[in-house]
Amino acid sequence: MSAEEKKLTDLSELGEFGLIDELTKDFKNIHSESVLGVGDDAAVIKPDHGKVMLVSKDLLIENIHFDMVYTPLKHLGYKSVVVNVSDIVAMNGTPKQILVGLGVSSKYSAEAIQELYSGIRKACQHYQLDLIGGDTTTSPAGLFISITIIGEAEAEKVVYRSGASANDLVCVSGDLGAAYMGLLILEREKSEFLANPNMQPDLSEKEYLLERQLKPEARGDITKLLGELGIQPTSMIDISDGLASEILHLCKASNTGVALYEDKIPIDQLTYDTAKELGIVPTVAALNGGEDYELLFTVRQTDFEKVKNLKGVSVIGYMTDRQEGENLVTVDNQLLPITAQGWDALKRKPQMPSSDAS
Amino acid sequence: MSAEEKKLTDLSELGEFGLIDELTKDFKNIHSESVLGVGDDAAVIKPDHGKVMLVSKDLLIENIHFDMVYTPLKHLGYKSVVVNVSDIVAMNGTPKQILVGLGVSSKYSAEAIQELYSGIRKACQHYQLDLIGGDTTTSPAGLFISITIIGEAEAEKVVYRSGASANDLVCVSGDLGAAYMGLLILEREKSEFLANPNMQPDLSEKEYLLERQLKPEARGDITKLLGELGIQPTSMIDISDGLASEILHLCKASNTGVALYEDKIPIDQLTYDTAKELGIVPTVAALNGGEDYELLFTVRQTDFEKVKNLKGVSVIGYMTDRQEGENLVTVDNQLLPITAQGWDALKRKPQMPSSDAS
Repeated sequence: MSAEEKKLTDLSELGEFGLIDELTKDFKNIHSESVLGVGDDAAVIKPDHGKVMLVSKDLLIENIHFDMVYTPLKHLGYKSVVVNVSDIVAMNGTPKQILVGLGVSSKYSAEAIQELYSGIRKACQHYQLDLIGGDTTTSPAGLFISITIIGEAEAEKVVYRSGASANDLVCVSGDLGAAYMGLLILEREKSEFLANPNMQPDLSEKEYLLERQLKPEARGDITKLLGELGIQPTSMIDISDGLASEILHLCKASNTGVALYEDKIPIDQLTYDTAKELGIVPTVAALNGGEDYELLFTVRQTDFEKVKNLKGVSVIGYMTDRQEGENLVTVDNQLLPITAQGWDALKRKPQMPSSDAS
Repeated sequence: MSAEEKKLTDLSELGEFGLIDELTKDFKNIHSESVLGVGDDAAVIKPDHGKVMLVSKDLLIENIHFDMVYTPLKHLGYKSVVVNVSDIVAMNGTPKQILVGLGVSSKYSAEAIQELYSGIRKACQHYQLDLIGGDTTTSPAGLFISITIIGEAEAEKVVYRSGASANDLVCVSGDLGAAYMGLLILEREKSEFLANPNMQPDLSEKEYLLERQLKPEARGDITKLLGELGIQPTSMIDISDGLASEILHLCKASNTGVALYEDKIPIDQLTYDTAKELGIVPTVAALNGGEDYELLFTVRQTDFEKVKNLKGVSVIGYMTDRQEGENLVTVDNQLLPITAQGWDALKRKPQMPSSDAS
C-alpha cells in the first residue's frame, strides 16, 4: 500500500453524522420552496400554490447497475441523479429537490464517498436541484445508492403514460442504442484488462458511446422546447429499459397499438458501426439496449408540422388501435411484433436474438 | 427440499414489472392528494393549499439493521414503514404517502417478498398511508429496503429540532430501553440456537421487549393528544439512536444545554429486570439503546400543568443555557456529562461502558 493510499479516511472515523455534515456542507439550496433541508427528521417543502408535486425514486446497486471496475465515482454520482431527473422530465415536470440514501461497505473510504458526492453536487448544479435530505449507513458489501427526487408541474401540463390515442405520432429525442454500445465496449475492455492488466486501451474513438453510458443527461431541454412551441405531448416516458420495453408501456397504459418504422429510429453512426463490429443488429441495440435516457412521447397529428423538422426529435411511427398490436415495420416492409427484451434487473441483461430482427 | 419448498416462485419468473404488479395490486389509495400512484415515471401529489410537505427516507440493510435469523418478514415490512412514519410524526406532521424501493437477492422467493409487502400493507392501513411508488431490483446479496415517506403539516405547526430555549421542559413519550433489551434477548437466543438447533426457547416472558424490537409503533397518538390540549412543542425528535444521542441533537440544533434527571427516565419494569439479568445498567440501556421510536420533545414552562400528569408522557428534565452543557443528574445527585454512544451504523453497535453510568 502506498503512502498516498494510507492517508484515506476510514468511514468509521467520521461516523454517520460527521460524514453527512462533511458531505453536505458545500450544498446551498436555491429554491425558496425548500424550507428546510438536511439536519432534521424530515425535509420541509412549501409547494407553489396550484402546482402538483412529482415524486420518484431509483435504486442503484453495485454489480447490478454499475461496475466499479470501469465506473468513475464522480460519474456514478452524477448519473444516479440524472436517472431520477429523467423520471421527472418524463412527466413534463421540473425537478427541484433530491434526497440521497447511501449504503456503503468498508472498502470505501470517506474520500471515495466525497468523490461520489462531488458528482451528485455537479448534477445538482447542472439541473438546479436542492439536496434536502440523506441517510448514510454501512452495507455488508458494496455500494447502494437510493435517490428520491421531487419535482413540480402545473397540474394540466403533467404528461402521463396513459394519454395517447390511435393516430398520435410517436416521437423520440436524440439517438438510441449508444449507451448500450458503451456498456459492451466497457465490458470488453474489462475482460481484456483482467486477462492482461498491463494493457492500455485507447478508447478515444468510442468516447461518445462511453459518455452516453457513464454520464448520460436527462432531456429537460426537449420538454422545455416542446413547451415553448406549444406542443403538449399526449403521453411520455423516458427510455431506461430500451425503446421496445418503453413503447409497450405507453401502449398498455394508453390502450393502443403502435407501428414503429425501423428506418426512422435514430441511431448514431458510431453506434451503428460499433454494433456491426460487435455482431449486433443496430436496430436491436436501439430497441433493447436501454439507458439512453431519451424521451419517448406521442403528439397529436395536428402537431406534425411543428415536430417534423424539430432538431433533436425524430418522428418514428404512430399509435394504432389496440387490436392492431405493437409492430415494427422493417426496412423491407415486414411487420414484426415488438417484444420487450429490455433490461429488467430481476431477469437478465439484454438478450441479443441470434436471428436478425430486421 | 420438501415439496412445500419447491413450489416457491423464483423472482426472475415474474420479472420486475410482474412483481410490482403483483405486490401492489391490493393497495388502494385513500387520500385525494394522491393523484397518481404506482405505474408511471413518477407519482403525482396535489398538496393541500397552505400546507407544507415533509419528506424523509430511511434505508434498512440486511445484517446491518436487521437479522433474518430472528426477524419475521411481515414484521420487517411493518417496521420499515414505522421508522419512516416516526420521522414525519417527529416534525408534528401527518404521514400520507410512501414509496418503497427494494433490492432483493436471489435467495428470496416471490412469496417471501409478498410476505414483506403484507407487513408494509398492514402498516399502510394502520397509519393511513398510500403506497404511491416503488422500485424493485436484484441485489448481489441480501435485502435492501429503502422507503421514502411524504407527510403534510400546517406550516406554523411544524416542530423543528432547533426551537427549544433554556428552561423549556424536556418530555419523552412511553418508556425507553425496551427495544434494545429485545434485541439483546434475540441475539442471545440466536447464539444458543446456533450452538444447539434443537433448542426451543420460551420467550413468552419477554414478549413486550421482543415486540418493541420487532414491531415498534410511531407515536402519532402523542402528537395528536398534544395538539388537542393546545400544546405546541418547541422542539422534537424521535428516538431511533437512544435518548443520549437525540437530546444532544436537540441541544446542538437549539443551541442550549440540558439537565436530565436519571430518576425521571421512564423504564419499564421488564426492561429494568432484563437489563439487570444481562449485566447492563438500565439507565445506560435507555440512554444508548435506541430503536424505541418514542418522541423526545420540549415544551414551554407554562405548559407544565398540562403535561405533568399526561398519560404516556414523562417530564425528564429541562433545557439550560448552552454553556452549562448537557448533563445527567444521577439518583445520587451527581452531574454526569451526556455523551452519544447511540447506535451509529457507521461505527459500532451500542457500547456498554463497563463502569456504572449512574
